Amino acid sequence: MKEIVIIGAGNVATHLTLAFKNAGFIIKQVFSRNISNADCLATLVDAEPISDLKSIYKEAAFYVISVSDAAIKQVVEDMPQVQGIVVHTAGSVPLLVLEKFEKHGVLYPFQTFTKDRGVDFINVPVLVEGNRSDVRHALVDLASSISENVQKANSNKRATLHVAAVFSSNFVNHMFAISQDLMTKSSLDFNLLKPLIAETTQKALSMNPIDAQTGPARRKDFGIMQDHLEKLNETEIYKEIYGLISKSIVETYYPGSHFFS
Amino acid sequence: MKEIVIIGAGNVATHLTLAFKNAGFIIKQVFSRNISNADCLATLVDAEPISDLKSIYKEAAFYVISVSDAAIKQVVEDMPQVQGIVVHTAGSVPLLVLEKFEKHGVLYPFQTFTKDRGVDFINVPVLVEGNRSDVRHALVDLASSISENVQKANSNKRATLHVAAVFSSNFVNHMFAISQDLMTKSSLDFNLLKPLIAETTQKALSMNPIDAQTGPARRKDFGIMQDHLEKLNETEIYKEIYGLISKSIVETYYPGSHFFS
Repeated sequence: MKEIVIIGAGNVATHLTLAFKNAGFIIKQVFSRNISNADCLATLVDAEPISDLKSIYKEAAFYVISVSDAAIKQVVEDMPQVQGIVVHTAGSVPLLVLEKFEKHGVLYPFQTFTKDRGVDFINVPVLVEGNRSDVRHALVDLASSISENVQKANSNKRATLHVAAVFSSNFVNHMFAISQDLMTKSSLDFNLLKPLIAETTQKALSMNPIDAQTGPARRKDFGIMQDHLEKLNETEIYKEIYGLISKSIVETYYPGSHFFS
Repeated sequence: MKEIVIIGAGNVATHLTLAFKNAGFIIKQVFSRNISNADCLATLVDAEPISDLKSIYKEAAFYVISVSDAAIKQVVEDMPQVQGIVVHTAGSVPLLVLEKFEKHGVLYPFQTFTKDRGVDFINVPVLVEGNRSDVRHALVDLASSISENVQKANSNKRATLHVAAVFSSNFVNHMFAISQDLMTKSSLDFNLLKPLIAETTQKALSMNPIDAQTGPARRKDFGIMQDHLEKLNETEIYKEIYGLISKSIVETYYPGSHFFS
């Protein structure tokens, strides 16, 4: 069975490594600058923990760099030349950063990973890019061993997907956080909102979000929006966010319409 | 068993009426200005359809006004005096609008209702307000017959909840709509985002949103944020939304920090 070296021991690295192990690959080494982090993950998958890239195993089929975006460049500099395929796993880092290696690519698992929350990898979309068609082919095979949803995408498309993910996940979570803050300040239980949150998401998954829009901005109900802005008076940035997103909704459904402000 | 008169035949009225009927109440009449709408709902629950408020039944225990916010005032004007408890079902309309009636209150079911999507009412939070303690008491009993999650809340708290709901539901849906637009313009399949959307919501429901935040703004990764803003260059309002929400996230997790713009 093919051998893989994992570079990194964070959330994404851990989920990926366990998925590869389950799919039958041999995890040869796990690298982390912090040897005890490397050790934790390596123990789980019978690999050798290393904290120096000079001692990297040279005969692996794949090298998976799964570190923070900012750390990728330094890892690439420190890594010796290898014959296997070297990939990173980042949404917004171009393929080009790996050009020092003859065979290189990207394997971008498209999900939000949190420590202590299991993720069923088989349903996680994985976007694949390679510098040559044989590399692309090998990476599609590799990704298909852990996910049922593998797609090819160049760096440009991958970056668009990352921006879209920021809106659909990071910004959505911040909307939840703002709601929770508003509720807490009024001694209201955040749990009250949970059935609404669950149903909103169910709708987005089963119909087009553009058709599922409801609320005062969708109805162009400026009276209610004005009341809401007054209620938000104490927190300037919440008021700004309420105004801007409401404006965007009004302009989406009533093009050319003037938004109060 | 107690008798209820329903005023309105839209989404919320329909879901509420069916829930009351299931709980064993007698639905005496269903009013709608459009008699055929009244007829549809009345037939489902063995009630009399009416389209003139002058012919309203005077001996009911409850009168539930579930029409659009803007229409409530006119309904109140047109209704004759009654001895039963008169409630409306709106989030942002104060109790005071019903003061013409001796016993009045609010019964606000807190969910997003869409035609053709069933809702399990037992899990829908219902907020209750009444002008007197005996009225409040009777309304808590009424609401508890259809929901396991009944809470008292005055008009001020109910309005805060409504603002929070706009963030958690309406604005969240608009984030999904923006993602879909970005994906479509780059010929990417919106389905790619669905596992991420589902997991983001699962996290919000099982842990505090404030602790679940991820992404470039949470990491204060200005390089990626700058790249994303450039990718959004074609749509000014998306760029503004990206900048403002990122700023809000950075300020939440790094108070006093300066945000680029």
